[in-house]
Amino acid sequence: MSLPTTDVKTEDLTAPAAKTTQLIVQKFGGSSVSDAEGIKRVARRVVDAQKAGNEVVVVVSAMGDTTDELLDLAAQVTDSAPAREMDMLLSAGERISMALLAMAINKFGASAQSFTGSQAGMITDGIHGKARIIDVDPHRIRTALDKGHIAIVAGFQGMSHATKEITTLGRGGSDTTAVALAAALDADVCEIYTDVDGIFTADPRVVPTAQKIDRISSEEMLELAASGAKILHLRCVEYARRFGVPLHVRSSFSQHEGTWVLPGADDKITIQEGVALEQPIISGVAHDRSEAKVTVVGVPDIPGKAAAIFQVIAKAHSNIDMIVQNVSTHGTGRTDISFTLPIVEGADALAALRDAQPEIGFESIEYNENVGKLSLIGAGMRSHPGVSATFFKALSDAGININMISTSEIRISVVTHADLLDDAVRAIHKAFELDGDAEATVYGGTGR
Amino acid sequence: MSLPTTDVKTEDLTAPAAKTTQLIVQKFGGSSVSDAEGIKRVARRVVDAQKAGNEVVVVVSAMGDTTDELLDLAAQVTDSAPAREMDMLLSAGERISMALLAMAINKFGASAQSFTGSQAGMITDGIHGKARIIDVDPHRIRTALDKGHIAIVAGFQGMSHATKEITTLGRGGSDTTAVALAAALDADVCEIYTDVDGIFTADPRVVPTAQKIDRISSEEMLELAASGAKILHLRCVEYARRFGVPLHVRSSFSQHEGTWVLPGADDKITIQEGVALEQPIISGVAHDRSEAKVTVVGVPDIPGKAAAIFQVIAKAHSNIDMIVQNVSTHGTGRTDISFTLPIVEGADALAALRDAQPEIGFESIEYNENVGKLSLIGAGMRSHPGVSATFFKALSDAGININMISTSEIRISVVTHADLLDDAVRAIHKAFELDGDAEATVYGGTGR
Repeated sequence: MSLPTTDVKTEDLTAPAAKTTQLIVQKFGGSSVSDAEGIKRVARRVVDAQKAGNEVVVVVSAMGDTTDELLDLAAQVTDSAPAREMDMLLSAGERISMALLAMAINKFGASAQSFTGSQAGMITDGIHGKARIIDVDPHRIRTALDKGHIAIVAGFQGMSHATKEITTLGRGGSDTTAVALAAALDADVCEIYTDVDGIFTADPRVVPTAQKIDRISSEEMLELAASGAKILHLRCVEYARRFGVPLHVRSSFSQHEGTWVLPGADDKITIQEGVALEQPIISGVAHDRSEAKVTVVGVPDIPGKAAAIFQVIAKAHSNIDMIVQNVSTHGTGRTDISFTLPIVEGADALAALRDAQPEIGFESIEYNENVGKLSLIGAGMRSHPGVSATFFKALSDAGININMISTSEIRISVVTHADLLDDAVRAIHKAFELDGDAEATVYGGTGR
Repeated sequence: MSLPTTDVKTEDLTAPAAKTTQLIVQKFGGSSVSDAEGIKRVARRVVDAQKAGNEVVVVVSAMGDTTDELLDLAAQVTDSAPAREMDMLLSAGERISMALLAMAINKFGASAQSFTGSQAGMITDGIHGKARIIDVDPHRIRTALDKGHIAIVAGFQGMSHATKEITTLGRGGSDTTAVALAAALDADVCEIYTDVDGIFTADPRVVPTAQKIDRISSEEMLELAASGAKILHLRCVEYARRFGVPLHVRSSFSQHEGTWVLPGADDKITIQEGVALEQPIISGVAHDRSEAKVTVVGVPDIPGKAAAIFQVIAKAHSNIDMIVQNVSTHGTGRTDISFTLPIVEGADALAALRDAQPEIGFESIEYNENVGKLSLIGAGMRSHPGVSATFFKALSDAGININMISTSEIRISVVTHADLLDDAVRAIHKAFELDGDAEATVYGGTGR
C-alpha cells in the first residue's frame, strides 16, 4: 500500500492519480471547518476518499475563530499568561473541531475516531507555544485504520517527551502535524486543503494573471515558502522534503487537482525527458513585507565582530534572513553590516544590539521597516545562464531601486522600498513569461 | 498535615476551623466561572486560601454555558453522536476554564498549573458519558503541590483504564472528581462551592423559612441527595462517606461557613454530649419531581415473577427507586407491583416491560408521571419514637393523599400527587419545627 523506495515514489508521482488504494493524510485548516456546514462539507469529502478505497487520516485545525476567542478570553484574565497554560487553553480548540468532524463522518455512514496530539503520538520538546516534533508514534492511528476507522487527529498540538506536558507547535503547526503523521505512517500523499486551488506563480492579489503551478520540487517550494509565499509553511515543507512525503496542496471547495510538491522532483529534470519539458525554468515569484532591514554602521573590521553581532541577535531569539556586509572602503578600518529579520522581532533585536554596543564597538544602528523582499525561484535557473541578467534588467526597466541582494542556486532575492514591491513583482512575473491568460482566484486567509 | 485517624478527624471537625495548615480541595462549578470576572473572583479566593498557609487543589467545571454551546454544535452536525466523540468534545470545556483560572491565579501573584483528568490520574472504566472512577493516581498533583504550585484539575473527566480513552463522569462528575482527589491526596477537607450558603432543611423556593444546616452526617446527606436535594450529588456523597472525606458545602459569593457533611458524624451523638445537644432529630425535607410511578397490574403471584420484572427493568438500564408490592387479596392468584423510576428512563422501561409481557404474564401497565416524592431525613429518628406518627398526621391534616410509602432507618418517603407536593413539603417542614425566622436565599442552578 505504501511505497517502499523513493525511486518508485518519484515515478508514481509523475502521474499522481495512478494507484487504487492509498494511505492519504488530509489536512483541513480552520477556515474549512469554521461552522457546522463547513464541518459537514469536509466530512463528506473525507468519507468519499475512504469510499474510493483509501485509508484516510485527517488532521484538523481549530474552528474558524475559536483560537481568537480563546486568546480574547485569556486577555480578559491576564496580560501575562504562562506559556504552559496558554498551550492548555489553545489545545482545546482542536478537540472541539475534531470531535465534531468525527461525529459528522459517523453521521454520513462511515466510522471515525478522533485523537488528541498526545493520543496520536506527537511527541515534542518542551518549548510551549512553539514546540518541535521530536518523535511520532502513531500506533493508535494505525490500529484505528486497521479496524476500518477514519482517524481524525488534532493539528497543532503534541505532548512533551520529558514532562508529558501539552504543547502546541506554533505557526504552521497543523500542516506540520499532517506531514509528520504522513511520514510516520508511510502515507502515499499528504493533502493540504486550503481555500485556493494551489500554489501560484505569484500572489494573485498582486499579479492577477498568476498561474497555478501543477508540480514543484520541495526544494523550490522551500525557497518559495521562505521567501514569503503564505500557502505552505516553511516548516511543513522542510519536514516533507526530509522524509520524502509528497504534498498535494488543493482547494477544499473544488475537486480540481492542486499543486503537487514532490520530494526530489527537480532531480528528474535531468533524468526524465518528458518531465523536463514540462518543468519550467522558473517556478514563481514570492514577496514578503513582514521583514525589516537593520544596518549596523561602523563595525570595526576585525575578525569576530560580525560573529559577535549575530550571536547577540540569536540570543534575542531573532531569525535573521538576508545578510550583506559592505566592503570596508572607508579607509577607517570600519564596515557596515546589513541584515533583515521579522518586524515582530525587531524591537528585541535592537534592544539586544544596543546593550552590546560598548562591547562590539559599532557606531550606530539604522532600522527600516518600510522594505519589501522579492524572490524569484526556479530549479531551472541553476543550469540556465542569463536568468540574473533578465531579472535585474526587468527591475531596472521598471525603475526599482535595489537595497540588498541575496542568491542561492535556485533563488534570487532583492530588498526594495516597500511601496515599489508590487510593481517589482509584476515586472519580474512578466519578464519571465509567467503570466497566464485568465485571472486567478484571490488568496484567502491561512489557518494554524 | 493530613489527619491520621478517623477519631482525630471527628474531633477536629467538631470545630472545623481549628488547624493552621491544611490540604484543601476546592470545587467550583460552571456558574462560578461563567466569565472572566467570575474566574478572577475564584482566583482571588484560591490565592487567599494558599496565602493562609494551605496547600490548595482546585477542581473546576466548564465555564457557564460552554457545555450547552458544545452540545448545540454537536446537534448541528448530527442527531446521533458517538459517545466517545461526545466525551472528546465536552472535555474541551474544562480545559478552557482550568487554563484561564491558572492564568488568573498567576496574574494574582501565586503559581498555578492546570491538569486534565488524565494528567491528574483520574482513571475510569470505559463507559463514555457516565464513566466510574476506578483509581486515582494524583502523583503529578502531589508534585505540583510540593513545588509550591496551586493545582487546577479539570472536573468531570478522566481516562479509561484499559483503552486510555478520554471519558466523562456524567452528572455530578465535577463534585465526584473533587472528592476522589481529596480522598487520594488525604486532604483535610473538600470544599464544594455553590451559589447558596449550604444545605437547607428544605428547598427555600418551596419553604421560604428553610434554615441552613450547619452539620449533617454523610449518611443523612446521602438520603437527602437520593431524595431529590440538588446541591450535592448522591455519587459525590457516597464517595466522601466511603473514604471519610469531610465536605464543606459553601457559597462562592460569601465567606460564611456553609454546611459540613461529616463522615460518621451521627455516631458522635451517642458519644459526645455537646454535639448531641446540637444535633437535631430531623435534618431536613427533600422533594423530587423527576420520577414517574409504574404499576404492573395482575402479576401472577408465583415466586420469581417480581424478580423477572426487575431484571427486565435493569436490562433497560433504568434505576428503580421505591418499590411496593400489594398483598395478593384478589383471590385471583395475582398481585400488583408498583415502583418509581426517573421519568427520562420511563419510555425505555415501558418498552422493555411490554416486550416481556408474554413471558411474565402480567395483565397491564399503568404509568404516571404526575407524581412527586417527599422525604423526611434525620439520623435522630431511629431512636425517637413518634416520628412516623407526627409525619403521617401532618400529611393527613394537610389533606394529602399518599400513593406509596418507603422507609429506611433515617428516612421516611412518600409519593403523592405532583400538585400537592409543595403543600406536603411545607406541612412536614412546619410539623417538625424546622422553620427559621428569616427567609433563605433562593437556590440557583447546579453545574456538572
